[in-house]
Amino acid sequence: MHSTPDLTHLETPCLVLDDGRMERNLERMRAQLRRLGVRARPHVKTCKSTAIGARMADTPRGPITVSTLAEAERFFAAGFVDVLYAVGLAPNKLDHVLDLRARGCDLTVVVDNVDGAAAIAARRAGIPALLEIDADDHRAGIRPHSDALLATARALADGGVLRGVMTHAGASYACRSPAAIAAMAAQERDAVVTAAARLRAAGHQAAVVSVGSTPTALFGEDLTGVTEVRAGVYVFMDLVMVGLSVCTLDDVALSVLCAVIGHQRDKNWLVTDGGWMALSRDRGTAALPIDQGYGVVCDQHGVALPDLVVHGTNQEHGLVARRDGGTLDFAQFPVGTLLRVLPNHACATAAQHDRYHLVRGRELTVHAVVPRFSGW
Amino acid sequence: MHSTPDLTHLETPCLVLDDGRMERNLERMRAQLRRLGVRARPHVKTCKSTAIGARMADTPRGPITVSTLAEAERFFAAGFVDVLYAVGLAPNKLDHVLDLRARGCDLTVVVDNVDGAAAIAARRAGIPALLEIDADDHRAGIRPHSDALLATARALADGGVLRGVMTHAGASYACRSPAAIAAMAAQERDAVVTAAARLRAAGHQAAVVSVGSTPTALFGEDLTGVTEVRAGVYVFMDLVMVGLSVCTLDDVALSVLCAVIGHQRDKNWLVTDGGWMALSRDRGTAALPIDQGYGVVCDQHGVALPDLVVHGTNQEHGLVARRDGGTLDFAQFPVGTLLRVLPNHACATAAQHDRYHLVRGRELTVHAVVPRFSGW
Repeated sequence: MHSTPDLTHLETPCLVLDDGRMERNLERMRAQLRRLGVRARPHVKTCKSTAIGARMADTPRGPITVSTLAEAERFFAAGFVDVLYAVGLAPNKLDHVLDLRARGCDLTVVVDNVDGAAAIAARRAGIPALLEIDADDHRAGIRPHSDALLATARALADGGVLRGVMTHAGASYACRSPAAIAAMAAQERDAVVTAAARLRAAGHQAAVVSVGSTPTALFGEDLTGVTEVRAGVYVFMDLVMVGLSVCTLDDVALSVLCAVIGHQRDKNWLVTDGGWMALSRDRGTAALPIDQGYGVVCDQHGVALPDLVVHGTNQEHGLVARRDGGTLDFAQFPVGTLLRVLPNHACATAAQHDRYHLVRGRELTVHAVVPRFSGW
Repeated sequence: MHSTPDLTHLETPCLVLDDGRMERNLERMRAQLRRLGVRARPHVKTCKSTAIGARMADTPRGPITVSTLAEAERFFAAGFVDVLYAVGLAPNKLDHVLDLRARGCDLTVVVDNVDGAAAIAARRAGIPALLEIDADDHRAGIRPHSDALLATARALADGGVLRGVMTHAGASYACRSPAAIAAMAAQERDAVVTAAARLRAAGHQAAVVSVGSTPTALFGEDLTGVTEVRAGVYVFMDLVMVGLSVCTLDDVALSVLCAVIGHQRDKNWLVTDGGWMALSRDRGTAALPIDQGYGVVCDQHGVALPDLVVHGTNQEHGLVARRDGGTLDFAQFPVGTLLRVLPNHACATAAQHDRYHLVRGRELTVHAVVPRFSGW
């Protein structure tokens, strides 16, 4: 980390991170998990920064969750040891997993089928794994009541180590009220608790019962039987979370700083240098009650300009217009004006950048520059 | 560049580039520009690789087009000198532009308004610039018949150097037939030729008359008065270009290698490790007659499996299904099977990766690994 003086001295586009908002988001999740009496295994796929991951994690050794072995490598190099790789393992990554474990990383993998479990077991290396459970028909996983659950456990146990079960209630993103999210959190809990009970009844170990998504973590009311919660996007929050009523615009800590580069007066557009390469192509709010286009526009201090929205993008151009299609006051936004755009999806937007510029509240001073990485 | 033996030894997801298809795409554009009698100024925003840019460019010094100053820096460091930065200049980049020019890069910038032109001119450094012309109401630029054209030229000339005009017919992506694209190419040409003639009549220099988009470059029939063509995506091609009838599936040189990590039998999904982080969130084919989801699925040799499509993605998960919603033959795709996914938009997909694995035709041998960069 080194400091630069001020947002107005940066080249645009670049990522700005409001440290105060981030700290508030972290504290909110900590308080909620204390209330629920479960351990955090924060997901670092959103931040992909060891410095920020260190603020999310309970200890400098973890536990943490990763979505790629590149994240496992970087965090292990930074001292994190207790790492869950929460994507079903492709057999082509087994050598890499064994190598990380041989170097001292306590890496746990995930599998949801007999063939994958057999590939892990065949290494006879005691690789620990969680069985992925399908809680919501959303993505991957084994149904908790299926025969496949026990068959996969048996295949894994013959050379691997079954540590427990995990699920991700991705369907929580389709919920439209806090009550619906709370119900989804109960459904997520029930799926893994049921699966763990069935495994134990069949004579298997299932010490770990892991759930996770930011909405269900924050609106869950009773996680009895669950041992850990994985969530990631809460560290920054984003417009999808705002659209789900998980947070408000004032909680969104991440933004893309861009500059006005032109005025299309007859179309009532500001043209900026914040295109989809800087904002990402994510249009996650398109399916929500308020479509935020490519992002909510703020002034350089991070204060939302509620009349404006990024209504279109090219690779390196953003088109900012009034939401009502009305006449823009161009004099308010001369060429060179800095704007900050709140992202639809923090994971996708952050992934387009290689560093965060940290500010506090409405101050323009950059008090730290924090690198982030990408890749697999 | 160093070699790795075989696609089956790589960790997924990663980018595969078919060198034979790329070379064919390059030769097609060369032949077309020879026929039209105009010079190429290839756009390197798609490849962001100096090795691939060298194959696109006519000489090791350029000319080339870039979309970021990071591209200008990397290509200048690799020996390219004649560089057009084709995004309207934000004043916060002026110091960087001057620095590149002071180090010997013949960098030309773009501007489309009086204030931006005045900011360039105020440096009194003879920074060369093109005026961006709006040919199609698509994005940025000055209308060729407007008073603003001459006002911007005058503002620039007072300290900067007017080199000519440029436009990008982004609206060609909304054309639905080769004839419509050819008409758009004529419209693009007329806009810049008209603007250049007005500038010359007013006593300005306008030696450069620059157009560019892959569709209009390949379907243009007469570029009289145009001096150079900028195009970038043709090097790889993609499903948007297929959808516009610019090329066929067999011309798409870029793909994302991923692995089957699970089977959702009751939903008829293959789950892969190629999610939106690897494919990008780009859904450019959603507006075209054939919606290709998140991409067309091929076998590991790059042979399209026309029944299949990536119908959904999570960050690190792809969901592959039959287009007709029918029953998958899971035995054909055991866990560990490698698939290659052709991208909707090559610029967006390539941007998610830091290297290309080059193969030839249906061979699995990786004959080179070529790095790519990102950022601003």
